[in-house]
Amino acid sequence: MRDLDLSSPATRSLNSTVAASGAAAPAAARDAVRALRSSQIREVANAGFGVADVLPFWFGESDRVTPAFIREAAAAALMRGETFYTHNLGIAPLRDALARYVSELHGATPMENVAVTSAGVNALMLAAQLVVGAGDRVVAVTPLWPNLVEIPKILGATVETVSLDYGERGWALDLDSLLRALTPDTKLLMINSPNNPTGWVMTRDEQRAVLAHCRRHGIWIVADEVYERLYYGEDGERTAPSFLDLASREERLICVNSFSKAWLMTGWRLGWIVAPRVLMDDLGKLVEYNTSCAPAFVQQAGVVALEEGEALTRALVADLRASRDHLAAALATLPGVDVKVPPGAMYLFFKLAGAQQSLDLCKALVRDAGLGLAPGSAFGPQGEGFVRWCYACDPARLDAGVERLARYLASR
Amino acid sequence: MRDLDLSSPATRSLNSTVAASGAAAPAAARDAVRALRSSQIREVANAGFGVADVLPFWFGESDRVTPAFIREAAAAALMRGETFYTHNLGIAPLRDALARYVSELHGATPMENVAVTSAGVNALMLAAQLVVGAGDRVVAVTPLWPNLVEIPKILGATVETVSLDYGERGWALDLDSLLRALTPDTKLLMINSPNNPTGWVMTRDEQRAVLAHCRRHGIWIVADEVYERLYYGEDGERTAPSFLDLASREERLICVNSFSKAWLMTGWRLGWIVAPRVLMDDLGKLVEYNTSCAPAFVQQAGVVALEEGEALTRALVADLRASRDHLAAALATLPGVDVKVPPGAMYLFFKLAGAQQSLDLCKALVRDAGLGLAPGSAFGPQGEGFVRWCYACDPARLDAGVERLARYLASR
Repeated sequence: MRDLDLSSPATRSLNSTVAASGAAAPAAARDAVRALRSSQIREVANAGFGVADVLPFWFGESDRVTPAFIREAAAAALMRGETFYTHNLGIAPLRDALARYVSELHGATPMENVAVTSAGVNALMLAAQLVVGAGDRVVAVTPLWPNLVEIPKILGATVETVSLDYGERGWALDLDSLLRALTPDTKLLMINSPNNPTGWVMTRDEQRAVLAHCRRHGIWIVADEVYERLYYGEDGERTAPSFLDLASREERLICVNSFSKAWLMTGWRLGWIVAPRVLMDDLGKLVEYNTSCAPAFVQQAGVVALEEGEALTRALVADLRASRDHLAAALATLPGVDVKVPPGAMYLFFKLAGAQQSLDLCKALVRDAGLGLAPGSAFGPQGEGFVRWCYACDPARLDAGVERLARYLASR
Repeated sequence: MRDLDLSSPATRSLNSTVAASGAAAPAAARDAVRALRSSQIREVANAGFGVADVLPFWFGESDRVTPAFIREAAAAALMRGETFYTHNLGIAPLRDALARYVSELHGATPMENVAVTSAGVNALMLAAQLVVGAGDRVVAVTPLWPNLVEIPKILGATVETVSLDYGERGWALDLDSLLRALTPDTKLLMINSPNNPTGWVMTRDEQRAVLAHCRRHGIWIVADEVYERLYYGEDGERTAPSFLDLASREERLICVNSFSKAWLMTGWRLGWIVAPRVLMDDLGKLVEYNTSCAPAFVQQAGVVALEEGEALTRALVADLRASRDHLAAALATLPGVDVKVPPGAMYLFFKLAGAQQSLDLCKALVRDAGLGLAPGSAFGPQGEGFVRWCYACDPARLDAGVERLARYLASR
């Protein structure tokens, strides 16, 4: 303990100076930060604090541990002593493995167009820092994981939202209203497909139209494609349609991805960016000023995930598809549930009678039924009336959850 | 590979649309990002590309691997399956261990005032995001690690620098000129003590005066104290004077720290913030939107570092002190070298004849002498004429470096 503490005369005298001045107003974050949305999912979780037996389906995370071969790769790198700084853009073996992986899925992508980031969300923050500043206009398609909408606000940008429509076939894009929102003074479109929370997947034709429009007006696209492998399309493709399939590598497209979903690596905080080569020096500077690099041993685990993880991803996607169908069928039997089966991601985002105030409903569900769901309003006002259920777990657990929901609905 | 590629007719037609429009100007990052400084150290390192035998003293990193007991803690957590998201502010055992550690060094600090971050630099970015936005005035004391000066610019702030003075006793603060620069409209003071690159350590009296002034005008202080344990003061203290010793935990002080230096964990990207409790909800949101959390297994390594690492830190500091004295004595014998022995950090930042263009000199040094030093100009114009030598390695390596410098100076 230091000899100077708060009770010392010197400190007391300073404290009275403070008390006497106008600066004594309580410390607080700046307004733009205070106005950022806090997590409604956390609010629901807090409402369940003390409830002994909660089945949580609220987070966007599988209940499976990262496979052993990936964890062992990190442990081996640690034992080899890989505990030093790496290049801002990532270690060469990982950039190279990513370049090969992306090239195989989406066409030629040199490693010079690839950067490693400290998580997918960190990639989104870096992408936003690259292109938007105070006063810039950003457009985002909602309902949406709040992070994409809030990140530009931290940088002083304004965010306009365009809502998907919910109809007979589930969530769908009104292309015309998106194109109308993409005015010539728009700096950036942020789009997440496959989408969290709805599972909506943008079609190739929609991507083509949006890309052409953004090219015409010089609008940047940040495509959050972290769920691209969690795709259950009828075309039998390994991955959802990607802007990378249509765009050259040197135009205004920043594609964001992550190891979290396809390799069960949520807690590792490892992501990547595919972007024009001309941005890479500036991106390197921003990485330096944000986290400097991802840990070397985490990056080595990423190399092994890419090189040996394809079977894992395919098996995972098959399981997720089965879980999705299992949950959707079970929910469809409940009164007051309107559920559609979406082609991507790992959520059912379904209409629930009584969820017009979804935050209140979800709090009641966790408190009274031990069922943890995410309120639709957490994903923007367009999500109100819906709840999100993450189905990345085994069917027995889903069944137990459905039983709780059924009991709750019957008791109302 | 996707069926649609760049040679498809659809894509070709889109490309010609682009070529025909004004939007065909090359993609580029926004001006504020392009204007950020890139690393002159990297520029020097690039100049040495292809030189077979370089002794690198340019990075702020020890040449020692993280001790085994810390690496093993991370590996054990991986094997236990700790691969999931954690709380935005960090796992409770780490926040608790940090609170105890900080309390022991600097007085009572509840864990509610502590947040875990994804590196010290990430803590600086989060701190800046908390309090500064476009148009805000920030003051920084230089020469300085560029990150503190550049981070506010990413957020649209303007940064005024106040230079330390170099004199008989080494680098020193002109307190009056700092106080003059801290005008009432200043939002934030960023100060790094012990300082990278100079090794300057702010005195308790200087801290007291600056704190009183900032209190008077409601100016935030972000204190980068990542080198606090690398302190070789005559007072025998375990740590350099800290603003935490003087301030209450609920006023406008955000204290940034890191596991990198005191526990040899540079590559782990683990840091922390001590800040007013009233900021913590907003800080949690910002962590969510920047990296969401540090990996759980990295955080577990941090717990073990804090609980079992004190002997390591003390031995490290003793070694560093010996290395500092060894290097300073050796350099002092060379013609054209003006070296002072500073009380903190792990660098000698010394005046070198011919270093008026330190970037050019450092490039020549690596190319012609195989000696890797950081140019003083990398730390702001005030550093011109100096070079930075990181002495965090064993004396034999330092001797080899000094020999190369001596030979180079003799050959000029």
